[in-house]
Amino acid sequence: MPTYHAPTRDMLFCTVELADLQGVAGLPGMEAAEADVVHAVLEEAGRLASEVLAPLNREGDRNGARIEGDDVFETPGFGEAYRQFAEGGWNSLPFDSAHGGGGLPAVVSFPVAEIWQGANMAFSLCPMLTQAAVDALVAHGSPELQERYLSRLVSGEWTGAMDLTEPQAGSDLAAVACKAVPEGDHYRLTGQKIYITWGDHQMTDNIVHMVLARLPDAPAGVKGISLFLVPKFLVNDDGSPGERNDMRPVSIEHKLGIHGSPTCVMSFGDNEGAIGYLVGEQHNGLACMFTMMNLARLHVGIEGVGISERAYQRAAHYARERVQGTSPGANGRVAIVEHPDVRRMLMTMRSLIEGMRALCTIAGEALDFANHAGDPERKKASKARLDLLVPAVKGWCTEEAQRVTSLGVQIHGGMGFVEETGAAQHFRDARIATIYEGTTGIQAQDLVGRKILRDGGREMTALIADIRSTVNELADIGDFADLERNLRVAVDALEEATAFLLDQQQNDINTAGAVSYNLLMLTGLVTAGWQMGRAALIAREKLDGEGGDRRFYEDKIVTARFFAQHLLPQARAYNDAVLAGSESVMALAPDRF
Amino acid sequence: MPTYHAPTRDMLFCTVELADLQGVAGLPGMEAAEADVVHAVLEEAGRLASEVLAPLNREGDRNGARIEGDDVFETPGFGEAYRQFAEGGWNSLPFDSAHGGGGLPAVVSFPVAEIWQGANMAFSLCPMLTQAAVDALVAHGSPELQERYLSRLVSGEWTGAMDLTEPQAGSDLAAVACKAVPEGDHYRLTGQKIYITWGDHQMTDNIVHMVLARLPDAPAGVKGISLFLVPKFLVNDDGSPGERNDMRPVSIEHKLGIHGSPTCVMSFGDNEGAIGYLVGEQHNGLACMFTMMNLARLHVGIEGVGISERAYQRAAHYARERVQGTSPGANGRVAIVEHPDVRRMLMTMRSLIEGMRALCTIAGEALDFANHAGDPERKKASKARLDLLVPAVKGWCTEEAQRVTSLGVQIHGGMGFVEETGAAQHFRDARIATIYEGTTGIQAQDLVGRKILRDGGREMTALIADIRSTVNELADIGDFADLERNLRVAVDALEEATAFLLDQQQNDINTAGAVSYNLLMLTGLVTAGWQMGRAALIAREKLDGEGGDRRFYEDKIVTARFFAQHLLPQARAYNDAVLAGSESVMALAPDRF
Repeated sequence: MPTYHAPTRDMLFCTVELADLQGVAGLPGMEAAEADVVHAVLEEAGRLASEVLAPLNREGDRNGARIEGDDVFETPGFGEAYRQFAEGGWNSLPFDSAHGGGGLPAVVSFPVAEIWQGANMAFSLCPMLTQAAVDALVAHGSPELQERYLSRLVSGEWTGAMDLTEPQAGSDLAAVACKAVPEGDHYRLTGQKIYITWGDHQMTDNIVHMVLARLPDAPAGVKGISLFLVPKFLVNDDGSPGERNDMRPVSIEHKLGIHGSPTCVMSFGDNEGAIGYLVGEQHNGLACMFTMMNLARLHVGIEGVGISERAYQRAAHYARERVQGTSPGANGRVAIVEHPDVRRMLMTMRSLIEGMRALCTIAGEALDFANHAGDPERKKASKARLDLLVPAVKGWCTEEAQRVTSLGVQIHGGMGFVEETGAAQHFRDARIATIYEGTTGIQAQDLVGRKILRDGGREMTALIADIRSTVNELADIGDFADLERNLRVAVDALEEATAFLLDQQQNDINTAGAVSYNLLMLTGLVTAGWQMGRAALIAREKLDGEGGDRRFYEDKIVTARFFAQHLLPQARAYNDAVLAGSESVMALAPDRF
Repeated sequence: MPTYHAPTRDMLFCTVELADLQGVAGLPGMEAAEADVVHAVLEEAGRLASEVLAPLNREGDRNGARIEGDDVFETPGFGEAYRQFAEGGWNSLPFDSAHGGGGLPAVVSFPVAEIWQGANMAFSLCPMLTQAAVDALVAHGSPELQERYLSRLVSGEWTGAMDLTEPQAGSDLAAVACKAVPEGDHYRLTGQKIYITWGDHQMTDNIVHMVLARLPDAPAGVKGISLFLVPKFLVNDDGSPGERNDMRPVSIEHKLGIHGSPTCVMSFGDNEGAIGYLVGEQHNGLACMFTMMNLARLHVGIEGVGISERAYQRAAHYARERVQGTSPGANGRVAIVEHPDVRRMLMTMRSLIEGMRALCTIAGEALDFANHAGDPERKKASKARLDLLVPAVKGWCTEEAQRVTSLGVQIHGGMGFVEETGAAQHFRDARIATIYEGTTGIQAQDLVGRKILRDGGREMTALIADIRSTVNELADIGDFADLERNLRVAVDALEEATAFLLDQQQNDINTAGAVSYNLLMLTGLVTAGWQMGRAALIAREKLDGEGGDRRFYEDKIVTARFFAQHLLPQARAYNDAVLAGSESVMALAPDRF
């Protein structure tokens, strides 16, 4: 049974060669991000992942979290693994050194996050949620709140949770009904939240919940929600956890996957009301939520890469070992990796993963410059690029993760359907990624509404121009004709689809919604394909030079070519669907379904 | 919680209006297939499905089959449901009246099969396997074997099982190692078989296994395997079940889905050897297997339709009930069916299902004429068409069933990931369909090798010509311009891809394998799209006439249009991948994965 090996070579390529690590390391506070540091960090993370987290992945599935009374108990072994994780400094790695963090940029912390997610997706959600809480606290918390909670969340001594959803308020936060009533320096919260990932467990002394609720005088809709910090245990003046707050998990969900991650229904204020502290301004909860959500969305996109990589490694191992049938030109029975159709599946998985990883990396690069660039123009441009990429990273990577993990099952044949093999777990685990932190439909709506229509397509036009310049570079290389042609056709499709949206939305209010999914997938595909084109150019240059690692660069050109030949043609299909507009989408009356 | 309602209206459309039911009813032995009989049969089947089978579906998932000692026990309730099923004459429905069957043609028995599969996929596999055993016995069994076993299998008094796979022999039957040693009028079998669906249970007094094994003097490879009938209980001279044969289930698999269907590891001959009877000639097991397999493959394709329909009904119900968010042009909060992106998902599911169902129906029509046509030319042409369609039905319908059942989860949002909702079960159950009875890769290999290359593309050319004549009919209808254009582009793609295969395979032995999947998906898509085009033409004619059911025909034109606009564009993408040939598929060395 294969374990997980962090794909550090490709991660280094993305971070050091594809992204501008040197530029990022030149930003204030990012000086630690030297290539050799990055290398060492990835290797060390990979070791913890292979030796500690990956071996617990199956146990988390079989022996998932359970609830007893008011307490959730995590999978045996997770607590000790978490201790090693936090004590190794891995929880603090992505945070500013000003807050006790490792001070590493996103171009480094993203691949590290992928390693945790690939090794043990259910486990990795816990630090991911902590990170979201830290982000909200850093951006919006008062100095007092920061003083009391921040360093413990950064170190991982305590974990965080994000409490947004209610039964009637899923994608639609306007319907949030949880109440918060002021009382002195704090508030009393009452209400119920659902789908609270790692909402309770026994791994740490405290859990810090970030809860959306509504003040008594709040306006209706999303403009009336506020964010509150609600600790599981109230914190004493000396910083130690004191009495238990009036909140408790009332049940955990029986889910398709990620059984090791407790998904809690949380009840607040069964008695006197849970004590909470306002984060940010009153009625400004939505903005605070987006602070948490933006990074969480990127991380769920990265999760799509991580779980895909895990599925790929398992399938590749099986394909090399499993002897079955004969193959053209080979004598006797062969390992199934020799069969062209199995090779097609492996190449599809691999080139998608490399494309996803590259896409996530340039989103990380944009995040780093958006957060730390001294030049305001660069900062602003990076922010705009990041905003455009977030839905593409989240939406496209998680949708394609469904395909990749399903191919992982398929390569195993009948064994793939048998749970003991492990391929099915990745397939089940992956299924949540297109749903939580905003469904694919919500990402698509974000892309067309907030990211394209709102600025009249300006940033999309800038992206398209950048892609075209890579097309031109590819055109200069004779043997990249197929890469050049297919990327050009694909970016033409993206341009045409964007123009259609901008034009047609004025005539038909259903256009944006009807075309949004196809435009989202088109954006993700073309942007990833662009990065694969850039990767091929870089690899070729390395091969022309001295190039110590010829096989890596040769392989990279092959996966880029496969991506262009087998995946990019989908771009025209997405565009054709966009150009069909809303007519046949909306023609049936709702009661006819 | 919605139950299952058989989509009898669309089934009737496919059987009576899209397929040539009248022509089929004119074939010898098929006289019963009058339109009103078909209607009554579908309604009655739908009632049993809704009232008896569908309510047990969830129970089969939660409380699946279990093994104790040498006996497998099915889900409680399945035995009683099976008794009603068999006593109602449903098991015998598809068989010739000469053997005690209902004498109904495939264009009728296929939608009936879809009903069982939609209602309870795990349950439906049992009669499906019985049917395979009957087919083998009818085609290849001696009069003595038929006399002893046939009527009981036809009636459903006993069930059948198909024992092909061994640990080292999955897709590759050349590696079958089970042994059969002659002893008087029978054989003694020893060996182990895996993945034996409904290999043991307590629902009937006997189970008739059809087992592939190898005689002592057998040549190596597939030309040395023979088929044996091996009953669980030896049959006394009076026809009653006697002593237990030397065979037993040794374990059942812990699977991703279809928990209600026991998947057995069967051991034969732990003691003196299991007694078996040769079916057909010695060493001719492969031909016998294909007799069983052809129909089983069609049924697994139909299963893709059935499970998709079930997922669709659940998602449509949820979308109409779940209130969330606002929608352009609507006041207040709306049911999510009002959101254009949810509508896109529902339309994708629905138009795929209608396309799949139409494809299965014309395969059934071809089967009926291939089996019963008096005119030898018609018989031969129908057989050739059927042979071409089998891999498309199996491969395309089951692959698209993955998309449809996944969309079923997606429409439910977070609820879709919670097992109690039921959407996740359909998603898990469906996952086997691309694997058993020959993986998608095997279907693809069958299509390119046995169905295209072997006859030099003749039958594919005939199919393409038929599709083109529908394109021409569409061109005559002004407002079907989009249907005409997209079907034309798609059939051009199919023609080009086929020509590429025929041409290129001579230069590069990897071509067939490398392009096979994309060509398979292209064939399924275009053929289904063709039928949707025909459906639109029929619907339009009915609307022009008196047309008692206007809304059905209006809706049919909408789904046909959606299929053309949103799904057919995929054809060029498949073709582009085909035209890329094997180069980037095969370029990486096996040890680089």
